[in-house]
Amino acid sequence: MDGRCTHAVLLLLCLGSCLSLTPPAQPFVRQEKASGLGSNSSKGGLSLDVPMALRVFSVDYYHVQAPFEIVLWIMLASLAKLGFHWSGRLPAVVPESCLLIMVGLLVGGVIYGVRHSAPPTLSADAFFLFLLPPIVLDAGYFLPGKLFFENLGTILWYAVLGTLWNVLGIGVCLYGVCLLASGSLGDVSLLHCLLFSSLIAAVDPVAVLSVFQEIHVNEQLHILVFGESLLNDAVTVVLYKLFESFLRLPVVTGVDVLLGGCRVLGVGLGGLGVGLFFGLVAALTSRFTSRAQVIAPLFVFLYSYLSYLTSEMLHLSGIMAIVTCAVTMKQYVEANLSERSNTSIQYFLKMWSSVSETLIFIFLGVSTIQDVHMWSWAFVCSTLLLCLLWRATGVILLTAVVNKVRRNVVTFRDQFIIAYGGLRGAICFSLVFLIDDFPKKRLFITTTIVVILFTVFVQGMTIKPLVELLEVKRRKRNLPTVSEEIHSRLLDHLLAGIEDVVGYWGQHYWKDKFEQFNQRYLCRFLIREERQARSSIVRVYQELERRDERADEEHITQLDSNLLSSLLSSMLFNSPCLFSHFLF
Amino acid sequence: MDGRCTHAVLLLLCLGSCLSLTPPAQPFVRQEKASGLGSNSSKGGLSLDVPMALRVFSVDYYHVQAPFEIVLWIMLASLAKLGFHWSGRLPAVVPESCLLIMVGLLVGGVIYGVRHSAPPTLSADAFFLFLLPPIVLDAGYFLPGKLFFENLGTILWYAVLGTLWNVLGIGVCLYGVCLLASGSLGDVSLLHCLLFSSLIAAVDPVAVLSVFQEIHVNEQLHILVFGESLLNDAVTVVLYKLFESFLRLPVVTGVDVLLGGCRVLGVGLGGLGVGLFFGLVAALTSRFTSRAQVIAPLFVFLYSYLSYLTSEMLHLSGIMAIVTCAVTMKQYVEANLSERSNTSIQYFLKMWSSVSETLIFIFLGVSTIQDVHMWSWAFVCSTLLLCLLWRATGVILLTAVVNKVRRNVVTFRDQFIIAYGGLRGAICFSLVFLIDDFPKKRLFITTTIVVILFTVFVQGMTIKPLVELLEVKRRKRNLPTVSEEIHSRLLDHLLAGIEDVVGYWGQHYWKDKFEQFNQRYLCRFLIREERQARSSIVRVYQELERRDERADEEHITQLDSNLLSSLLSSMLFNSPCLFSHFLF
Repeated sequence: MDGRCTHAVLLLLCLGSCLSLTPPAQPFVRQEKASGLGSNSSKGGLSLDVPMALRVFSVDYYHVQAPFEIVLWIMLASLAKLGFHWSGRLPAVVPESCLLIMVGLLVGGVIYGVRHSAPPTLSADAFFLFLLPPIVLDAGYFLPGKLFFENLGTILWYAVLGTLWNVLGIGVCLYGVCLLASGSLGDVSLLHCLLFSSLIAAVDPVAVLSVFQEIHVNEQLHILVFGESLLNDAVTVVLYKLFESFLRLPVVTGVDVLLGGCRVLGVGLGGLGVGLFFGLVAALTSRFTSRAQVIAPLFVFLYSYLSYLTSEMLHLSGIMAIVTCAVTMKQYVEANLSERSNTSIQYFLKMWSSVSETLIFIFLGVSTIQDVHMWSWAFVCSTLLLCLLWRATGVILLTAVVNKVRRNVVTFRDQFIIAYGGLRGAICFSLVFLIDDFPKKRLFITTTIVVILFTVFVQGMTIKPLVELLEVKRRKRNLPTVSEEIHSRLLDHLLAGIEDVVGYWGQHYWKDKFEQFNQRYLCRFLIREERQARSSIVRVYQELERRDERADEEHITQLDSNLLSSLLSSMLFNSPCLFSHFLF
Repeated sequence: MDGRCTHAVLLLLCLGSCLSLTPPAQPFVRQEKASGLGSNSSKGGLSLDVPMALRVFSVDYYHVQAPFEIVLWIMLASLAKLGFHWSGRLPAVVPESCLLIMVGLLVGGVIYGVRHSAPPTLSADAFFLFLLPPIVLDAGYFLPGKLFFENLGTILWYAVLGTLWNVLGIGVCLYGVCLLASGSLGDVSLLHCLLFSSLIAAVDPVAVLSVFQEIHVNEQLHILVFGESLLNDAVTVVLYKLFESFLRLPVVTGVDVLLGGCRVLGVGLGGLGVGLFFGLVAALTSRFTSRAQVIAPLFVFLYSYLSYLTSEMLHLSGIMAIVTCAVTMKQYVEANLSERSNTSIQYFLKMWSSVSETLIFIFLGVSTIQDVHMWSWAFVCSTLLLCLLWRATGVILLTAVVNKVRRNVVTFRDQFIIAYGGLRGAICFSLVFLIDDFPKKRLFITTTIVVILFTVFVQGMTIKPLVELLEVKRRKRNLPTVSEEIHSRLLDHLLAGIEDVVGYWGQHYWKDKFEQFNQRYLCRFLIREERQARSSIVRVYQELERRDERADEEHITQLDSNLLSSLLSSMLFNSPCLFSHFLF
């Protein structure tokens, strides 16, 4: 740790102790106005007791407590992030998520030391309603659509069957462990084990994003792991809710199990539907924002959040909804809004998700410092082992099947990274707190924390050296040129034509059909008239330019890229006919 | 009202009735987890009562109520704004604030009709902690610094003495009215009248901004009215708190009044100090964000909000603090951050303040629909008349004095617009709700609403025709060129030199001194090394370019301006020596 980093840590410590001095957080407490004589500012916890009726100086902390503490936490998170990035060398070795958890542990320790009571934990509501949506929205908005849909089958295969495999495997085996150690773990039922396994089995999108952003594996491997972590939400939510309801029922009948099966489909498709609806409405709204450009970016955030909240309200998969909403609206919104609005949307999504992610990892650390931890070597260690074991076997088995169908097979090295990259994170942490009270709840919480810390620290820190050791194919840094993109599109059209001729309706056929439908109806309806690209080459160029701009952001100085892109685009815009004539 | 507008209004009505169907708003209500058998989702107010233990479909509204309703209100506000802007002609005649209040009245009426109880009012906490800061931050960040400081003396003169004049005049006269109508208003004391006048006398920055943005008077007139509305906050806060404390004291002694006088200075200077501190810290922080550009814009919002909250906590002037913070940090932050970060900051400030403003006006309308209004022709009409009268006399008298000192005098037409532009808004509306209960509180609330609606509707709608009728000097649309700016700077230097030679230390002398100090110490300390402009011509050019870009945003197509500015700036950057040699 070099000098600059020490500075940052010291700064954080100060902030941390400042936070710890404040009374226990009671967010959203309202100051009730006292009336009557002589009561002015007598409620201020820190008010200076000047023995006088009228004060020249007074402090009223409770009045601003909720926003003040929230701002301080965000400030701590941002400064921590700033500190790591500033100190250059540290983040190259240790993943940011680990560093943030360590900061959280530190802050939690300081708060515990000063207050002699457990620091505040992140409430499940705050996590699911406020911190998770920005991250998933960001992930959905920047999802590489083409790659995702090309691999959708495999992703769903892993997400649905893989999660089921893991949940059932871990749950049943854990019950076996509990039966073996019936002395201390005898009161844990099979349903409890299944409930626990349903939350511990799911791969966490936040943790995966955070670690995989830094290791730069090839796009296909990345989308397989990340797509799985996004789509398994529907399965996890259903299984968790199902086992939770079963625990409350006096008897579980076959009908109940059947109904549960129906819900898996309903929750997933419902989330998809909600997201699609709000995405299309958002696209339509963005068509009419030309005269109120200032508030145009707002609709992107409002509609996607609304889709998430609506899904949560209807007990559907909120993650599915917000991702679908983002994917649906993206191309239309980008076409309708000005370049500056688009920049703001991208910046704001990245900023928000980055802060949320930071806060989540810091709170993971802070929440680890608790008064009562329940420990059982047998339970904790077997959970850890079972998680690794069932994930590995699951990936190997499922890939063996899927490789028979796929054109480009998932290699053994890829399989290893998929299995090893199955990180757990804040979602299971928040879910475990929501379990109804029962004697071993504390043990479940402790075990969850251990599993999360193990996957984030041990797997997260070793995955980068392993990727290098195994020589896993890396991401190509250079972006596709206009010519490459055109050739790839030509090939797609060709394949669609071949599929049509031989009568095999594969993905290229459907993609082509959807593209036609999109161009003929959706774009005409959802994109402003003056923005509808007249020739497809202009559209391709615009897309590439946008992608290019984002990627180059930190590499090339702004001025040069602006100059270049403006020059190029002005050339293209002034002579689109020339280009399209040349090409088609 | 044309067809498109009718569409928008219909849409709003739907949204409104959707809002009204929800149970009474209980923001920040937490769902408590029930445990035990058979209690799953039994708390959901809207849950479908399927007579079965396990439900395939269930609704849990309470879980998402708080964020859901907040999002719906923001959505309503944004859609209303979109509707007006879309319908082109309407906003040209009626100011947006009036339209929004009408939408609020409509929504309030619908809610009242459906629920048969008063619609939710905006709580003072929500207003002061969440809606006001973005507007004031935006105003401070885009404050034309040079113009503001050149007119600072006059602005302070109006803000401090003018407000005192109005408060005392209106308060004492109102007491006279109460004494005259002692039958119905006999229980209103002098202190009550003064408390009321202290809140009703202050010009509201939100209302002023909203109306003056549309009438385009010359910059000096604009800064005089708007600056006054910003800086009178310190006086208003102090007087309001002072009279409030006096009301609670058994006897008011001379010492208390003296202490109150001290507080005026303390509150203003305290706010200034807090703002200055956080502004410098924010500038310093932005120096180190080069490796974490994504979260860089966040610090602008965090630090300024923190300055506001800290001031509110210490009972200082939050508005002063946040404006000072924004003014202080602006030039350093803009120099340190990338162009894309700066665009995002600007966009986000505008977006946020625009939404806050919209929400405030809508809620003003909604809150007008209430169960109990207390009416007194004598009190309401005399308040209205007194407000107009004392404002007019105050402006005339104070201007007569100030014109003896100023180089370019405030003309009579300007005085009329200053007096007529003294709009009241949501600040007094929120303050009046905070008054301790006493028999005539309802009357105060009703009167405040009437005064606000009168100033916003009558004055707000007639000020534009009056400006045209009186031929008040308008804003010049063309921005200064580099050459103009250089000449104006040359003149400033010249004047500073002359002032130095003749031994008169006027504003030019101090400005020059500060500029030197800023260049030698502050910039070196607060701006990243590679961003520190080597010659002042480059800095001037950068500033102009930024200003230019903002102003042109909606007029020139993005592409052309980008091309032009990039070309120009690349020319300048590649040959700064050439330019500076040529000029100095």
